[in-house]
Amino acid sequence: MAPIRVTGARITPVAFADPPLLNTVGVHQPYALRAIIQLDTDAGLVGLGETYADTRHLARLRAAAEAITGLDVFALNRIRASIGSRLEGDTTAVGTAGMITSASVVDQVLSPFEVACLDVQGQSLGRPVSDLLGGAVRDAVPFSAYLFYKWAGHPNAEPDRFGEAMDPNGLVAQARRIIDEYGFTAIKLKGGVFPPEEEMAAIEALSRNFPGLPLRLDPNAAWTPHTAVKVASGLAGILEYLEDPTPGLAGMAEVAQQAPMPLATNMCVVAFDQLAPAVTKNAVRVVLSDHHYWGGLQRSRLLAGICDTFGLGLSMHSNSHLGISLAAMVHLAGATPNLTYACDTHWPWKTEDVVKDGALAFVDGAVPVPTSPGLGVEIDDDALDALHEQYVRCGIRDRDDTGYMRTVDPSFEPAGPRW
Amino acid sequence: MAPIRVTGARITPVAFADPPLLNTVGVHQPYALRAIIQLDTDAGLVGLGETYADTRHLARLRAAAEAITGLDVFALNRIRASIGSRLEGDTTAVGTAGMITSASVVDQVLSPFEVACLDVQGQSLGRPVSDLLGGAVRDAVPFSAYLFYKWAGHPNAEPDRFGEAMDPNGLVAQARRIIDEYGFTAIKLKGGVFPPEEEMAAIEALSRNFPGLPLRLDPNAAWTPHTAVKVASGLAGILEYLEDPTPGLAGMAEVAQQAPMPLATNMCVVAFDQLAPAVTKNAVRVVLSDHHYWGGLQRSRLLAGICDTFGLGLSMHSNSHLGISLAAMVHLAGATPNLTYACDTHWPWKTEDVVKDGALAFVDGAVPVPTSPGLGVEIDDDALDALHEQYVRCGIRDRDDTGYMRTVDPSFEPAGPRW
Repeated sequence: MAPIRVTGARITPVAFADPPLLNTVGVHQPYALRAIIQLDTDAGLVGLGETYADTRHLARLRAAAEAITGLDVFALNRIRASIGSRLEGDTTAVGTAGMITSASVVDQVLSPFEVACLDVQGQSLGRPVSDLLGGAVRDAVPFSAYLFYKWAGHPNAEPDRFGEAMDPNGLVAQARRIIDEYGFTAIKLKGGVFPPEEEMAAIEALSRNFPGLPLRLDPNAAWTPHTAVKVASGLAGILEYLEDPTPGLAGMAEVAQQAPMPLATNMCVVAFDQLAPAVTKNAVRVVLSDHHYWGGLQRSRLLAGICDTFGLGLSMHSNSHLGISLAAMVHLAGATPNLTYACDTHWPWKTEDVVKDGALAFVDGAVPVPTSPGLGVEIDDDALDALHEQYVRCGIRDRDDTGYMRTVDPSFEPAGPRW
Repeated sequence: MAPIRVTGARITPVAFADPPLLNTVGVHQPYALRAIIQLDTDAGLVGLGETYADTRHLARLRAAAEAITGLDVFALNRIRASIGSRLEGDTTAVGTAGMITSASVVDQVLSPFEVACLDVQGQSLGRPVSDLLGGAVRDAVPFSAYLFYKWAGHPNAEPDRFGEAMDPNGLVAQARRIIDEYGFTAIKLKGGVFPPEEEMAAIEALSRNFPGLPLRLDPNAAWTPHTAVKVASGLAGILEYLEDPTPGLAGMAEVAQQAPMPLATNMCVVAFDQLAPAVTKNAVRVVLSDHHYWGGLQRSRLLAGICDTFGLGLSMHSNSHLGISLAAMVHLAGATPNLTYACDTHWPWKTEDVVKDGALAFVDGAVPVPTSPGLGVEIDDDALDALHEQYVRCGIRDRDDTGYMRTVDPSFEPAGPRW
């Protein structure tokens, strides 16, 4: 087979409606942004990728697309090196409301191109992407019900279909609704919004109402180590894992020594250079992978192998995303033997997409791994155009949960730990 | 593309002439053993693999071949799991003169099948195996001149073409000959044979005679930590790295604290479960990978990624091998960005092979990465038959450097550390 050379990439920022989901740095804006990559090749095959769309990231993506033009889609080592050279000195990661800024810029920019290359590889071989990752070890990938405290609707807008969830009862109703619809078999609550006692009460209510379902709580480092230990003790026997209770490796290590459940993270271990210190400090027991900042699917496999080798559990993190990302997540998780926790996804919260319906479905809380060539998803051109128009119209250019919260509460301060 | 299913494997033990190369546990027997795997598939494609041929290993290979029959050559995760299930409880690695017994049996048995699967994948895609590993990052892979103390010939046989090397002058002459012929740009001496002072003198002679060429010394853990520190201090500024001076992680860590050069190993870190303790103890600075016991090429990439992540250097180990292994080593090394040391190979010591001439050549000490589909090597059926006949005839069924040495010196004791 001749090389399949990248001839360029169409990078389209899109915006899709997003409910007012609360977190410790603020609240989701009315639209979430993503960049859609259509990687063109001289074989006529087009590979898809999806990533953040913050202004700086878009500029980096354009530079990266230029840097890899002419390279073979199988030359992933060279593609990473080319992007690395082009972005040298560019150091602050984007796209997560300022919560994951120490990720590798190169890996964050590489990710959608690597996914798109694997999509082209798979299409050219007539093989699903999971086959390029060692082959699926499970037919379907379980996800968790990702619960959020939320307002009934955005300010000055109608309530959305989920309505308000500002207390235990609201969250239980939200969980009931999402679980009835999707069949999820695990529950994650985004915390860090209300004082820890209220969030503990919410977890306890969920535990009572959904007995047997693994539960997780993620306050995004909103607590001091002291508070974190208190919460952890209070939730002994109830939580599957406690995610990022406090900022930084040192704080996490301190809490880990006293917490009765494993600590998980997608904040203090978000790049390869943070793994050695985390292992040395014994700061976490579970790493939440996310191919969007770990450098794509192959490097996420490397992370999985490192977790396996160093005795760390592996789960999967999510930001608001569309169907291309879900497909990539499912191929990766399906082909990762030690990814034994249900993955996170924001999927239930979105109402729009850029991919054609039908390729991805939730069955009993799990998404069957696509078996068609490549990622197995196709762009809906009209939908892509419409969501790009929405991007142009909405005026949001960078994710800013804090700024949006301040339009409602001018005194809001995101600085953590808050409690 | 439909699945390409394994229909069986032809496993052929072969023996090839090997010179009397000395090491700390004895001396190479007149024939080295290898098992050649021809993996048959329902697509008619045949994948090649090469591994040890010790009796226990052959039985394991046959069991593994049975376990993976019916699986798709892309289903490498399932292939590993199937072999793991079949070999459960089987725990002692083979094939290295008893020097690397703590390797993973599953990874050791998986290796030739994984390589053969990648060979089939590459053939079916029209892509070299390096493309399945992220793509070559170098056009050719540098190797080191691997020097041995040796007798002029085997007992009761004519001297071989290399003649005797039992002192510094002999080794310098050996190096001259091998380097003139192959163009190697680094030198490794297998030590642990003579008292350390003699081996230090040999290294110093090599350093004087080959200025600028990186030098390595590998006594296979023949020294106490105390002796190792003395040798290391004496060779400051001369050795690129010192390989396995003393047994075990604790001893290596002790030496590492005082040695002026990096310590390398292919004895105390030979399996994934030994990486965490090695990192914790800070026992080694360079890991010598070897796909024959690290589980094949994909898992060797994982090892490479772990070394990169934890700040360890990466080099490559060799046992006596034939052309299938060299091809696999070259594809792997060619596609591994952080494999920056010249790799080891026993290649110059052999005079026979099972693969057709022409696919692999040394140019200025380096082997160009094959660009033809798969591994790029083909079985020479007559040669395979002849070397199998030689296996049957020679009577050697397990590598036993110590036993063979005792036919010459009945009082020989391999127990280390010797000095």
